[in-house]
Amino acid sequence: MQTIRVETPSAKYGVVTGSVLVGSLGSRIERIAGKLPRRFFVLTSPEIWALWGEAFLSSFAEPPIALFLPSGEKHKTLASVERLARQMAAAGGDRGSLMIAFGGGIVGDVGGFLASIFMRGIPYVQVPTTFLAQVDSSVGGKTGVNLPEGKNLVGSFHHPLAVFADISVLGTLPDRELRAGLMESIKAGIIRDRSLVRFMEEHAAEVLGRDAKALEKVISASIRMKAGVVNLDERENGLRMILNLGHTVGHALEQVTGYKVLLHGEAVGWGMVAALFLARQRGLISRAQFERLESLIYLYGPLPALKLRKARVAAATGGDKKNVGGVRRFVLPVGVGDAGVVEDVTAAELEAAVGYVLGRAGEQYS
Amino acid sequence: MQTIRVETPSAKYGVVTGSVLVGSLGSRIERIAGKLPRRFFVLTSPEIWALWGEAFLSSFAEPPIALFLPSGEKHKTLASVERLARQMAAAGGDRGSLMIAFGGGIVGDVGGFLASIFMRGIPYVQVPTTFLAQVDSSVGGKTGVNLPEGKNLVGSFHHPLAVFADISVLGTLPDRELRAGLMESIKAGIIRDRSLVRFMEEHAAEVLGRDAKALEKVISASIRMKAGVVNLDERENGLRMILNLGHTVGHALEQVTGYKVLLHGEAVGWGMVAALFLARQRGLISRAQFERLESLIYLYGPLPALKLRKARVAAATGGDKKNVGGVRRFVLPVGVGDAGVVEDVTAAELEAAVGYVLGRAGEQYS
Repeated sequence: MQTIRVETPSAKYGVVTGSVLVGSLGSRIERIAGKLPRRFFVLTSPEIWALWGEAFLSSFAEPPIALFLPSGEKHKTLASVERLARQMAAAGGDRGSLMIAFGGGIVGDVGGFLASIFMRGIPYVQVPTTFLAQVDSSVGGKTGVNLPEGKNLVGSFHHPLAVFADISVLGTLPDRELRAGLMESIKAGIIRDRSLVRFMEEHAAEVLGRDAKALEKVISASIRMKAGVVNLDERENGLRMILNLGHTVGHALEQVTGYKVLLHGEAVGWGMVAALFLARQRGLISRAQFERLESLIYLYGPLPALKLRKARVAAATGGDKKNVGGVRRFVLPVGVGDAGVVEDVTAAELEAAVGYVLGRAGEQYS
Repeated sequence: MQTIRVETPSAKYGVVTGSVLVGSLGSRIERIAGKLPRRFFVLTSPEIWALWGEAFLSSFAEPPIALFLPSGEKHKTLASVERLARQMAAAGGDRGSLMIAFGGGIVGDVGGFLASIFMRGIPYVQVPTTFLAQVDSSVGGKTGVNLPEGKNLVGSFHHPLAVFADISVLGTLPDRELRAGLMESIKAGIIRDRSLVRFMEEHAAEVLGRDAKALEKVISASIRMKAGVVNLDERENGLRMILNLGHTVGHALEQVTGYKVLLHGEAVGWGMVAALFLARQRGLISRAQFERLESLIYLYGPLPALKLRKARVAAATGGDKKNVGGVRRFVLPVGVGDAGVVEDVTAAELEAAVGYVLGRAGEQYS
């Protein structure tokens, strides 16, 4: 068990990684939050609750009120938030209530946002159950839901009281979700941690085989990278932007495929290939570095095949949240273990990079 | 013109009161926010825009993108917020955008909430156009919308960059709204400013006659009281609770009448009568003080007649946001110019107070 600290101007909390945490949450949360309030809630998905609900409940003297969010990006909406807030109000939730978000990234994003606006804000705890949520979305305080116009266009910064990343629950995670989540760890390595890149290259079999030690190593390194960036730039005014490596083209791919074809991590995988291509064209990485990092992404694949029109994907990058005042922002790797933000990517460069990805995504896996 | 400072741990800004501010907003906002961004928005109501839109636009070199919220509490919903956020996204709004909320309390609450969650938060400016919004809702950073289960059950704390309270626009405010808004000034006097109570007693004719000097005196005193309380307790952990004088029964009355019969200030007026009755019963105010303050409320009436069942109103106080862990919180005046929070109001006391109000509301005005 390890505890990684997040310390920003607005919040200080620990991200605990380890095994068999879900069965001891009751006392762990009371140690942090004090006596549990009269009304407290757990937001979860029906699937996670069926698998882990009993273990979850075992450590609470009084059970929390369970709220459910069906799986899938299409439920990550303001309409879901309203339905859940109404359930909380009807169940007697008040300003002293506490929320536990127990599930994947969508449950975490919706639960955190719900906690941030219910009665103008109540505390919450993240208990992420997917690899992706453990290494990425549960840390850093970003919450939100989608609009038809784009992902995460409404939301808030609302840090949890604590995050408990239990490696044991990854045992029931589908293989495809594990592989998709590992794309964010590859991202962590590319932008800030060369030794993580090397570890993932050398230990792919153990990691994909869910060896507990190998998984904990990758998870804790990824969280440490993210916490380090968030500590320096809580509100994404500068450095934190680098966490978006692969996300500009990734979001565009998710959007044009209607959030139905790609898992988020898979979209980020393809998006990172686009960023690598762009960085190679600009000479920010060598040919050898390009090949090394592209191979690493495919090593943790397969990424789904795509048949899309280049221009449509390129156009879809226009609505990206990172863009301010019409400038197209792009995170690009610089060597291995570093990255920067550029604002002068031309339409031609973008189309070439998208074209490269779509070529790979057609040829390799279709 | 006066500027009253709000200074909390999370924000510092000025509340400017004066005449003819709406026609000079462009330069005033640029002085505070810097050069206006490429996409900025004004949220307003069709009625306000018809009356004041031209004056508003006159000081902007590039006009803001206008968004409209129809009048009425029934539009203060998450569905409205979603519709407006989608319009902003479709119009190219981004993290660098700015929002101006130009209207009454509902426009301010919805506009502030929208600004707090669009792209996880953009800055906004309040330009309140009703007396109520000028003295109360535009100051202090509370934003939010209603759920069917109750008022303002979802929202956030998000301070504006500045507030411009233009007394000139009150010239077009319907008389009933002015009177309702003045209830919040009476509240300000009762809980924290004896001299305001006296001024409102002695100058009712000038205030209700919209004498500019008298109005500015009442408005600036009310804002100064509120800013002082917010500065000491931004997040309503203690002192700020006293601003809710009259709001427990007031909210219940609004709820059981479906938000259709009473303006918010009118509901607060009746709610203050309930609080005065309770305080008199407990000996917190003398009979003379009770009569003096009740008379002041009626002096700025009339408050609408009500025919309601006592038990229903009493029951509706149970969902109040001020309640935590099942305790019924109540703000009660202590003499004239002071107030405190009590948590031990019995069901019998509450019913008696509601009964008194319903007696007055039937006998006096029906």
